[in-house]
Amino acid sequence: MQVDLNADVGEWSAGSGDNLGDIDLFRLITSANVACGFHAGDAEVMRRTIRAATRANVVVGAHPSFRDREGFGRREIAATPQEIYDDVLEQVTVLAGIARTEGVALRHVKPHGALYNTGAKDRSRAHAIVSAIAAFDPKLLLIAPPASALVSAAVEQRLRVIAEGFADRSYQPDGSLIPRDVEGAVIHHPDAAARQAVRLAVEHIVIARDGTRIPLQVETICVHGDTPEAVAIASAVRRALEHAGITVTAST
Amino acid sequence: MQVDLNADVGEWSAGSGDNLGDIDLFRLITSANVACGFHAGDAEVMRRTIRAATRANVVVGAHPSFRDREGFGRREIAATPQEIYDDVLEQVTVLAGIARTEGVALRHVKPHGALYNTGAKDRSRAHAIVSAIAAFDPKLLLIAPPASALVSAAVEQRLRVIAEGFADRSYQPDGSLIPRDVEGAVIHHPDAAARQAVRLAVEHIVIARDGTRIPLQVETICVHGDTPEAVAIASAVRRALEHAGITVTAST
Amino acid sequence: MQVDLNADVGEWSAGSGDNLGDIDLFRLITSANVACGFHAGDAEVMRRTIRAATRANVVVGAHPSFRDREGFGRREIAATPQEIYDDVLEQVTVLAGIARTEGVALRHVKPHGALYNTGAKDRSRAHAIVSAIAAFDPKLLLIAPPASALVSAAVEQRLRVIAEGFADRSYQPDGSLIPRDVEGAVIHHPDAAARQAVRLAVEHIVIARDGTRIPLQVETICVHGDTPEAVAIASAVRRALEHAGITVTAST
Amino acid sequence: MQVDLNADVGEWSAGSGDNLGDIDLFRLITSANVACGFHAGDAEVMRRTIRAATRANVVVGAHPSFRDREGFGRREIAATPQEIYDDVLEQVTVLAGIARTEGVALRHVKPHGALYNTGAKDRSRAHAIVSAIAAFDPKLLLIAPPASALVSAAVEQRLRVIAEGFADRSYQPDGSLIPRDVEGAVIHHPDAAARQAVRLAVEHIVIARDGTRIPLQVETICVHGDTPEAVAIASAVRRALEHAGITVTAST
Repeated sequence: MQVDLNADVGEWSAGSGDNLGDIDLFRLITSANVACGFHAGDAEVMRRTIRAATRANVVVGAHPSFRDREGFGRREIAATPQEIYDDVLEQVTVLAGIARTEGVALRHVKPHGALYNTGAKDRSRAHAIVSAIAAFDPKLLLIAPPASALVSAAVEQRLRVIAEGFADRSYQPDGSLIPRDVEGAVIHHPDAAARQAVRLAVEHIVIARDGTRIPLQVETICVHGDTPEAVAIASAVRRALEHAGITVTAST
Repeated sequence: MQVDLNADVGEWSAGSGDNLGDIDLFRLITSANVACGFHAGDAEVMRRTIRAATRANVVVGAHPSFRDREGFGRREIAATPQEIYDDVLEQVTVLAGIARTEGVALRHVKPHGALYNTGAKDRSRAHAIVSAIAAFDPKLLLIAPPASALVSAAVEQRLRVIAEGFADRSYQPDGSLIPRDVEGAVIHHPDAAARQAVRLAVEHIVIARDGTRIPLQVETICVHGDTPEAVAIASAVRRALEHAGITVTAST
Repeated sequence: MQVDLNADVGEWSAGSGDNLGDIDLFRLITSANVACGFHAGDAEVMRRTIRAATRANVVVGAHPSFRDREGFGRREIAATPQEIYDDVLEQVTVLAGIARTEGVALRHVKPHGALYNTGAKDRSRAHAIVSAIAAFDPKLLLIAPPASALVSAAVEQRLRVIAEGFADRSYQPDGSLIPRDVEGAVIHHPDAAARQAVRLAVEHIVIARDGTRIPLQVETICVHGDTPEAVAIASAVRRALEHAGITVTAST
Repeated sequence: MQVDLNADVGEWSAGSGDNLGDIDLFRLITSANVACGFHAGDAEVMRRTIRAATRANVVVGAHPSFRDREGFGRREIAATPQEIYDDVLEQVTVLAGIARTEGVALRHVKPHGALYNTGAKDRSRAHAIVSAIAAFDPKLLLIAPPASALVSAAVEQRLRVIAEGFADRSYQPDGSLIPRDVEGAVIHHPDAAARQAVRLAVEHIVIARDGTRIPLQVETICVHGDTPEAVAIASAVRRALEHAGITVTAST
């Protein structure tokens, strides 16, 4: 049994100082979703993040967002599918180009924040996201929630999907995430996150806040990188997975 | 004998998290230079910074920059005086408007980074900076290096100047700062910064790196807010000044 | 009988050339809504637009938008009321500051595009928009659609409202505008726009696309400034209004 | 005898309307330098520009700039070579990615404005520009002024150079361009531009403003796309070249 462990990284700016806090995470995760400048990051940060991830044998992918630095990509924008196609294309292409000059090939794309959420539900937007990825490179993988509009679009366009679960987010009984602005949406305790990760990897279920057991078949588990307890959580999750006999390794 | 203690604050982004690290500084300084969005900051950060500073009885001013978030305002841009006038005006006016809705009036303006440096030397740019401030509100004070082009321009346009020295920057024998990219430009040790601050406040001199004693008549002393040791330095400087019998208080 | 004639102006960028096409409009309208940099415009454009409008005796106001240059402010963003408050405040304050250095006081604020539409319907967002204006200067007037959430919020916060009708937009039977992406939303023929303007000013009605006569009490009529036929339409509207015995003059 | 005819295109924004004025140029030129978003353009404009150019059999390349929309890339920024490397890489890579999804490969890179000028003179910056291009794709060609630092850097790094002359810019006796802010820097008359183009293509000289005949061996001739007379000039240049027996065709 094996599982991939992914985190969002490169979500800072070079201008404001030398803050490669992601480095501790790289010893723990197996896949990194690198911000592409629309919600965070810039060319220097991308290059340094790709370099640090690769040095730590972490596989890298793009983490495109709505164009919204002010809102950190967490606000839905009433963009047309064509605008979303252009935005995703621009971001994937920049990150791929920078990676290429570092001798690295992108493995996957995982939409960020509001783009991930809208892509999970809205068929025409999911189609736009997947089309941009496939047009650029049909061998890229897509990290997406199981049974989402993104998965359907990827199947149609023959993009391979890596289904994702979250170690440190609470779920609703219907299998969707509790929105971030709801109390209890984010799991802050390392042990609770570790338990949820093991359940996902071993039993292929998640327990919703009301106790419902939801079957959830995932290949990768996300741990967050942008909270104060990020490293503690990633560390607890990794240890618990290995203790449960799961091999933590990047999907291919 | 008295001196003002100032620091640059609000140099972060609301989007990327809840990081009001400036709060510890506000217990130590008497004047705060608030970033206006061109090199760092945004409306939410400005509002929260003004509120926190005011609550701590710290006087606030604007800290305008070249439009350069990528370079954190540290890179000179070949802007015309008219462009510099527009840029300064836009920044001062935004911060003043946000302050006004918080019931706060700006006391001063201190140019940031490359704008401060070019204004210190270039007469037409100094004139543009001072003109924008005076056009907006002739009662604003200007924080500037002693005997600089900014001071001359302010005298011409009847803007009151608060001459500034630095506790934690090294000086050249001609009284100018050693550029940031030169080894030793920034003083990291709290005791060394405290000694330099006391010398500035009591003896009105600074000792250049080669040992030269430079007379420097200043009303305000800057401590940096953006380094890991910022609070330790500000704390050592404040204690040393008070121990030397100097009243630390905002100039008016 | 009298009516105000307003248009959105300053919706271009100084960087890309010397394009003050608004100048022809200024001979025809009585109020100008000046873009504040979030959907279009910059400090230089604002200054030049205010100057040109004032020289032509056109009263100026702010035209704040969602932060969305890519979408020209026409895309709704899922911003919180607090973010909208900050965005409106930042824009009004910049334009007011630049106007002040030109010796000009703003008369009014008219939200742009998606912000106007969301403010017309959403009570908490309307409240945020009006609060930002009132906090900055309670003497500013608000241009808004009649009987909208913006009007209710303005009444609550004692901001005077100037109700607005459109000469060159088609209406739905419920009195709302036909969305821009629907065929026939924009009236391109000067005569048709002129007829609608006269009906609004004299009979206080508008005729919806299905023939319904909708009572609409407005004090100002908007003509668009960003279409090829803008000047022809504004010119026909102005002539028709004056021919019908209406005095075209800015509301106060 | 043959020569390439190039112009800068895609220097507008999709948000502000549907302005593909470049289309007339595409019937006249053989190579297009497409803005990459830093001084003008955006993903939609890039895509539409690449599509229109390709449909007209015009070869496309990247036109990277300093990050400066306010100054249209005409202002030098005191960026480090590493920052310039990152900026060029980001721009070339975005344009190449968008081109790739249109089934188009970039042929060349031509730096824009202040980046072109600084690259012509400054060896370390020229090195940074060329390194970014070569790291991304060593088969890209570089359009640069003859005998410039850019040419030296390209020779060192084995990038093929297409030397460039200007039909509609005046030259100094040393072979450099008269700066844009000097009266007479830009040639507005189609006949004068056409004569200069023919001289460049046939006699391999240019006549400086003081009458000096300067030998200038060029493979491509630039006509400007952003002036009111752009199409008239390009048309006159093309006709004159063909009339003189020169084949106008893209270099390879």
